Amino acid sequence: MQVVMLLYPRMTQLDLTGPYEVLDRFEELNLHLVWKTLDPVPDVYGLRILPTDTLAGSPQADILFVPGGPGQISLMEDKDVLSFLRRQASGARYVTSVCTGSLVLAAAGLLTGYRATCHWLSLGQLAYFGAVPVSERVVTSGIDFALTLAACLFGEGRAKRAQLAMEYDPKPAFVGGTPASAKPELVASLREANAAFQKEREAVARRAAAALQIA
Amino acid sequence: MQVVMLLYPRMTQLDLTGPYEVLDRFEELNLHLVWKTLDPVPDVYGLRILPTDTLAGSPQADILFVPGGPGQISLMEDKDVLSFLRRQASGARYVTSVCTGSLVLAAAGLLTGYRATCHWLSLGQLAYFGAVPVSERVVTSGIDFALTLAACLFGEGRAKRAQLAMEYDPKPAFVGGTPASAKPELVASLREANAAFQKEREAVARRAAAALQIA
Repeated sequence: MQVVMLLYPRMTQLDLTGPYEVLDRFEELNLHLVWKTLDPVPDVYGLRILPTDTLAGSPQADILFVPGGPGQISLMEDKDVLSFLRRQASGARYVTSVCTGSLVLAAAGLLTGYRATCHWLSLGQLAYFGAVPVSERVVTSGIDFALTLAACLFGEGRAKRAQLAMEYDPKPAFVGGTPASAKPELVASLREANAAFQKEREAVARRAAAALQIA
Repeated sequence: MQVVMLLYPRMTQLDLTGPYEVLDRFEELNLHLVWKTLDPVPDVYGLRILPTDTLAGSPQADILFVPGGPGQISLMEDKDVLSFLRRQASGARYVTSVCTGSLVLAAAGLLTGYRATCHWLSLGQLAYFGAVPVSERVVTSGIDFALTLAACLFGEGRAKRAQLAMEYDPKPAFVGGTPASAKPELVASLREANAAFQKEREAVARRAAAALQIA
């Protein structure tokens, strides 16, 4: 099975590297990191990862995957990327994303009528595309997502084996990784700090939704 | 503060990319990915990450970090890497690792007399170097480690803010990420599957310990 994972500038690399770590432990899966060129792709903080295939040279995905991150906003109006995703999705068995990657799938028209999720700051924007925003467990944690997917594909036994091989036993030092569990002041402060960027993201989402002729 | 993170062929990339994601959110920290050359470094499954600095060109670390992975065994007898780590550690405030990265620090003589931890399959090997093996929480989870370190450096408030910004709220689909919580049959089966490689790792650890004149 071919797993096609989109790389892009200013992505959140952990959204991609987490699932990569899990999925590449399964021999049945061939992972491809795809972008427009084969040049190194910098994440939002500058970590540079090399693609394995271009969009044009990518195999047909059985599993299509889009990570999140601030760079997602340019993809939402990028005709080449959107048509690549539509083409790939039409032949894929699973169309997946982590964090704000779902907004890119939504902009490609792939989530219309589906339940979908997103980073808490941007969750509401999914509705512009006719998707049904839900806040569920396998949301922004790429590792949890990938183990769940692996269990769907290969059964719980093998997913558990990968989890033990990775010694994946997360125990965050602090409570408060979600807006529901964090202190309201902290949630408000992060909203405030991200307000300008979220305004831009919102505007792009509305334009992309209009382009889809849904909004 | 300079954070010097060692890249190396056949590392477990998530050991590095997890902490990178957390630490690069703190403006006070400058992250450096260092290896012998500036060529792309492939992890154990082939994901290629670009270094930012060579060993020779690396700044002095305030925080020194070594990820784990199968490639660690060649580092344990690599004089250039071991002397780099010793030189860096002598000026660093924190000397850190995830997973089997600790065995490399041990081979450099940096853990002798200290409590240290490691991936469950290799934990016992730390004792060859005069380290005290402990199985503790911030062990193989690079993300949890980095949030704990960030709290030490910048206070709990800012660490919690980073955690919420990342929406880091892991909820593994399955129990059993440690040998204590997994079914004994699964633990035995993984030990069996890794026996040949663990034998090699063990032999290298014994040689490296002998070279340190401790064993």
